[in-house]
Amino acid sequence: MKLEQLSITQLEERQLQLEKQYDAYKSAGLSLDLTRGKPGAEQLDLSNSLDGILQGFYLLQDGTDVRNYGGLTGIAEARELGGLFMDLPAKEVMVGGNSSLTLMYNYIHFMMESVWLKESKSNNETIKFLCPVPGYDRHFTICDAFNIEMIPVNMLDDGPDMDHIEKLLAQDASIKGIWCVPKYSNPTGTTYSAEVVERFAKLPTIAGDHFKIMWDNAYAVHHLNDQPDQLSNLMDAAREADTAESVIMFASTSKVTFAGSGISFIGLSEDNLKAFEKFLSASAIGPDKVNQLRHVRFLVDADGIQAHMRKHKDIIGPRFDMVDNVLNQHLGNRGIADWTKPMGGYFVSLNTLPGLASTVIKMAGDVGVKLTPAGATFPNGDDPRNQNIRIAPTFPSMEALRQALEVFVVCLELASIQQLLKR
Amino acid sequence: MKLEQLSITQLEERQLQLEKQYDAYKSAGLSLDLTRGKPGAEQLDLSNSLDGILQGFYLLQDGTDVRNYGGLTGIAEARELGGLFMDLPAKEVMVGGNSSLTLMYNYIHFMMESVWLKESKSNNETIKFLCPVPGYDRHFTICDAFNIEMIPVNMLDDGPDMDHIEKLLAQDASIKGIWCVPKYSNPTGTTYSAEVVERFAKLPTIAGDHFKIMWDNAYAVHHLNDQPDQLSNLMDAAREADTAESVIMFASTSKVTFAGSGISFIGLSEDNLKAFEKFLSASAIGPDKVNQLRHVRFLVDADGIQAHMRKHKDIIGPRFDMVDNVLNQHLGNRGIADWTKPMGGYFVSLNTLPGLASTVIKMAGDVGVKLTPAGATFPNGDDPRNQNIRIAPTFPSMEALRQALEVFVVCLELASIQQLLKR
Repeated sequence: MKLEQLSITQLEERQLQLEKQYDAYKSAGLSLDLTRGKPGAEQLDLSNSLDGILQGFYLLQDGTDVRNYGGLTGIAEARELGGLFMDLPAKEVMVGGNSSLTLMYNYIHFMMESVWLKESKSNNETIKFLCPVPGYDRHFTICDAFNIEMIPVNMLDDGPDMDHIEKLLAQDASIKGIWCVPKYSNPTGTTYSAEVVERFAKLPTIAGDHFKIMWDNAYAVHHLNDQPDQLSNLMDAAREADTAESVIMFASTSKVTFAGSGISFIGLSEDNLKAFEKFLSASAIGPDKVNQLRHVRFLVDADGIQAHMRKHKDIIGPRFDMVDNVLNQHLGNRGIADWTKPMGGYFVSLNTLPGLASTVIKMAGDVGVKLTPAGATFPNGDDPRNQNIRIAPTFPSMEALRQALEVFVVCLELASIQQLLKR
Repeated sequence: MKLEQLSITQLEERQLQLEKQYDAYKSAGLSLDLTRGKPGAEQLDLSNSLDGILQGFYLLQDGTDVRNYGGLTGIAEARELGGLFMDLPAKEVMVGGNSSLTLMYNYIHFMMESVWLKESKSNNETIKFLCPVPGYDRHFTICDAFNIEMIPVNMLDDGPDMDHIEKLLAQDASIKGIWCVPKYSNPTGTTYSAEVVERFAKLPTIAGDHFKIMWDNAYAVHHLNDQPDQLSNLMDAAREADTAESVIMFASTSKVTFAGSGISFIGLSEDNLKAFEKFLSASAIGPDKVNQLRHVRFLVDADGIQAHMRKHKDIIGPRFDMVDNVLNQHLGNRGIADWTKPMGGYFVSLNTLPGLASTVIKMAGDVGVKLTPAGATFPNGDDPRNQNIRIAPTFPSMEALRQALEVFVVCLELASIQQLLKR
C-alpha cells in the first residue's frame, strides 16, 4: 500500500517501528559500502591467468618486440581487439594504458589546446558541454578541470532528451561536446535506442566538427541478461551523415579483466587519430605493449570476450537480483521510491521522494552504511530535485550487500514518513 | 697525425681513398641505425620472468588488492623501490605508469595550470626554461608543447655552467625551471659534481619555489664501470637550504626491465606530492599496480637492482668499448673529432669540427647508416656550432654496430678533409 494512503496514526506507528530498527543498527557498529563501482575479488580472480600468459613470447607477427619502446597507437592485435569492443575497424582504434578516463582527459586537453581555447578567446565565450543526468561524476570532473561549463540534459527511457539537445545545439556554437555512456548508462542502465543514435549522427550542431560526442562505451559487453541490449553503431551512422569527425568513442577492459591493470581504447576517424597521436607524442613514447599482448592472448576474440563476460554475469547477476528483491520487498508499491532494473552495467539508480536523497544518505552513513554522496551523478554535485541515489552492488559480499540494503530501506522509509508527517 | 698537418697532396690522396670506400658502402645496400637509445633484445631477456612472477598472489600486506582500482600514489612497496632509485624516503615518492616522460609532462602541465600561466598573464611575460646543452630532445619537446621558451646553457665537465645559470636566475623571474639529467647525462655522460649539486640547492632564483628543478635521474643505476660515479643527494642539500619545494626528481625502470612496460617514479616534497596527486585525480584513477608489484618482486631491493644492472653492463659494456675503439683507431689524434667515454648511461656524444655535423649525418644516411638528426640535442633543433652527434650503441648487434661505426668514421674523415681543402 502506498504510504500516502496511510492514516497519521498508522504512519506514526510505522515510524516508531522503523526508529527502533534504526537504533538497533546504530549500536551494531556496521561498516558497509555501496559506493564502489568496482569488481569484487571473485570477478578479478577470473583473469588471474593474465600474469604469466605470455610464456616468454614477446614478439608479434610484424616483428615488433612488445617489451621495447614505441608504438603510440598500440599493437595491431590489440587494435583489432578494441575494434570488437567498439564495433570499429582496427585502423580507427588506438590502444592506451590502463585507463580510458585518461584517454578522455587527454582528448579534451588536446581539443582545448588545438581548437577550443582559441575559439573561446576570439569569441569571448565560455566553452560548454552537455551532460545527460544523472551521469558519471568522473566525466564532470574532467570538465571542471578544464573550466568547461556543464549544461545538464535529462535522461529519458531511450537515451538523453534529444529534443532539448537539438534545440540547444542549433543555437549555441560554444557548446563543444557531450558526454554519453550509450549502453547500460551510468547510473541509469539505459541503452540508447536506434533512433537516438541516429539523431546523434545528425545533430544540427553549428560548431561543426569542433563539436565532439564523447561516446564512453564503458559497458559495451557487460550484460546482466542473456538477451543483451543492442546499441547501434554511431560511427556507421555518422559516416553516412558526414559527421564522423565528431565521434570519439571509448572503451576499456577495466571491468573485464583487472580493474586497475586493463587496457583502454579510443575509437575515432583516421584523421582524428593521426592528430591525436601527434598531440600525445610530446607526453608519451608508447603504452604498455606487454600488457596489451597479454589481453590479446587472454580474450582472443569476440567469442572469448563473450564467454568471459558470461562468467562475470554469473557472479554479479545475483547481486543485482538481490538489490531488486530487497527494494521490492520493502519499498515496492509504497510510492516512495523508484529504481532501475538494469540489463547490464554496474549500477542501480534509485529516486527517492523529491528532496530526500541527502537525508537518506546521511542517515545510512550515520549507522555505517556508505552511499555515494547526494548529487554525485550531477554536474557540480547539484541534483536539483535531491532525489537520485546510485547503488553499486558488485563489490561487497552477498551478505554485506544484503545487510547494507536492509539498512538503506529502513532509512529511506523512515525519512519518507518523517517528510509526510511534516506536511 | 693531425689532419691539418698533412700537405694538400696528402689530403687529396687520402680523400680519394675515402671516396672509394664511401662509394663501396653506397653499393652495399646497408641499413644500419645508431639513433635508438633503447635496450637490445638480449637486455630485455634479462627481465622475462616479470610476466608470471606474481604466481597468483595479488594481495599486499596492507590488504590492498593490486588488481582493483585506486591508489594514485602507487603501492607502498613500489614507493620504497622508487626511493632506492632516487635516494628518497618512500613518502616523497609517487609511482606512475610505464613512462617517467609522462610524469614530467604531467608535472609541467600541473605547474602551468596552477601557477605559471597566471603569473605569465599578470606579468605579461613569456615562461622560460633553462636547458643544459647538449641535452635530451624529449625534454625540449615538452617545453615546445607548452610554448615555454628555452634558454640553452652549456654543459661543462662537472655539470651545467653554474655561473651562467646563477646569473640568469638572479635577474629573471620568468625562468620557471631547468631540465637536468644529473647522472650519466644524455648525451654527454656527465655526472654532476658535489659542488654543482650544492649550487643547485642554493640557486639565487627570484621565482622562489615557483622555480622547479626537473631532476631526471634516468640513469641512476646504469653503470658501465665497477667504480660507478657518485651523485650527491640534491633533495638533502635542498632541505638544508630550504629549497626542497623546487626539487622534482624522476626515475624509471625503463632501461632496467622492459623499456615500454616498466614503472616510473616522481620524487618531491610531501606538500608538492599532495598537490600533484590532486591535479592527477581528474585524469586518472590510479596506475597499473599489478605491474608495480611485479617490479617489486623482481628487483626486490638495492642489492637486487645492483646485481641486475651488472648483467646489463656485461651486455652493453663491450658495445661502448667498441665505439671508443673504432673511433680511436680511425679518428684518434687526428684533430677532427672528440667524443665522450661515459661511465654509464646510454650514449656517446661526439663533436665534429664546427659546421660539419649535418654533413656527416647526411653522408652516413645516404649510404644507409641512420644517425640522430643534427641539432636534436639542442632546443629547437639548433646546434649553433653544428658539431654535436649523439651515438646510441645499445640496440644494434655487435656486428651491425661495427659496420655502422666504420661507415661513420669514413664519412666524418671525408667531410673533414673536404672542409680543409676548401679553405
